[in-house]
Amino acid sequence: MAKRGMLIVLSGPSGVGKGTVRKEIFSQPGNNFHYSVSMTTRDMRPGEVDGKDYYFVSKEEFEQQIKDDQMLEYAKYVDNYYGTPLKYVNQMLDSGKDVFLEIEVKGAMQVRKKAPDGLFIFLTPPDLMELRQRIINRGTDDIETINKRMEKAVDEIEMMQNYDYAVVNDVVEEAAEKIKTIIRAERWRVKRFLPDYKKQLGDFK
Amino acid sequence: MAKRGMLIVLSGPSGVGKGTVRKEIFSQPGNNFHYSVSMTTRDMRPGEVDGKDYYFVSKEEFEQQIKDDQMLEYAKYVDNYYGTPLKYVNQMLDSGKDVFLEIEVKGAMQVRKKAPDGLFIFLTPPDLMELRQRIINRGTDDIETINKRMEKAVDEIEMMQNYDYAVVNDVVEEAAEKIKTIIRAERWRVKRFLPDYKKQLGDFK
Repeated sequence: MAKRGMLIVLSGPSGVGKGTVRKEIFSQPGNNFHYSVSMTTRDMRPGEVDGKDYYFVSKEEFEQQIKDDQMLEYAKYVDNYYGTPLKYVNQMLDSGKDVFLEIEVKGAMQVRKKAPDGLFIFLTPPDLMELRQRIINRGTDDIETINKRMEKAVDEIEMMQNYDYAVVNDVVEEAAEKIKTIIRAERWRVKRFLPDYKKQLGDFK
Repeated sequence: MAKRGMLIVLSGPSGVGKGTVRKEIFSQPGNNFHYSVSMTTRDMRPGEVDGKDYYFVSKEEFEQQIKDDQMLEYAKYVDNYYGTPLKYVNQMLDSGKDVFLEIEVKGAMQVRKKAPDGLFIFLTPPDLMELRQRIINRGTDDIETINKRMEKAVDEIEMMQNYDYAVVNDVVEEAAEKIKTIIRAERWRVKRFLPDYKKQLGDFK
């Protein structure tokens, strides 16, 4: 029996640049994880390819998948569904391949419930970390500016605490590199490989 | 207030090559963590330097440190004490520096109790992972050889499950590189930086 693959989830506030970082990661050679293509009911845009950018399906088909509990996560934005079909993800994981999802924060929380052993990475806007610096060097900003940033920071922290790691998207190449470092390190995490290893020893006994 | 540093503990079965891997890590440039020198009551050997290889102290001094609860961990081997003085470690951590300990398995478990937020890395002998391969390719070894290895494997697994990560010491340079990757990735772990970050936001409010 092959070792089950790792489910890698990249998420973060909208506009943080998840797609750009994901493309950067996949543009580099030597990745042995698979990108899970999302499913949507929205119209295909010029240049998009079915099965590559999205699986484009009808509203009825999508709702049937939900009904059959075949979606790992999904959400509705402006009358259209977006989500991750479970079937492809499970096929890949079962064959020992790692699967990479790049999804919205709400979707990531659905995945966390269904797959608690996934690796959850939060992409943070640079100003959250800048805020830290600004607070340290008090007095350079007016209080209203800092207060607005504080509110945003509190929201982002709320989201972040449900993740294993957080990476600042300051320079895209650096964020991509950090995410790859995290994925590499996680392979040596005892809780990830020990259950499989014990099972193999047990099978032998 | 400076962010508290990270306590990094490298351990593993005796003879696995912890010292060699630690020296390899520290021989490379760009490390910003500090090696914690152990304290011992054994005699200084030719070439050893007090305060570099060990802090060499008398039995009475060591026992006073134990009495005063000033040892992070210690053990007695063949009439001599070996251990990690708490004072230096805490000074470094409080000033925001990361501290690297390379210690025996029993000592690591004492540290785990006192500093549960430390980063615990287990160095594994290559044959533990080879065994896995041997079990997969059954029939190439006689049953007695495999059984002996199985017993050893079970012992090592018992130890390993108390650690966060396990790295095989196959090629020293590769093991060192993996450990550095793990330490790098851990810096982006939400549970490591979020408490400090929240505290800073709170201080500002």
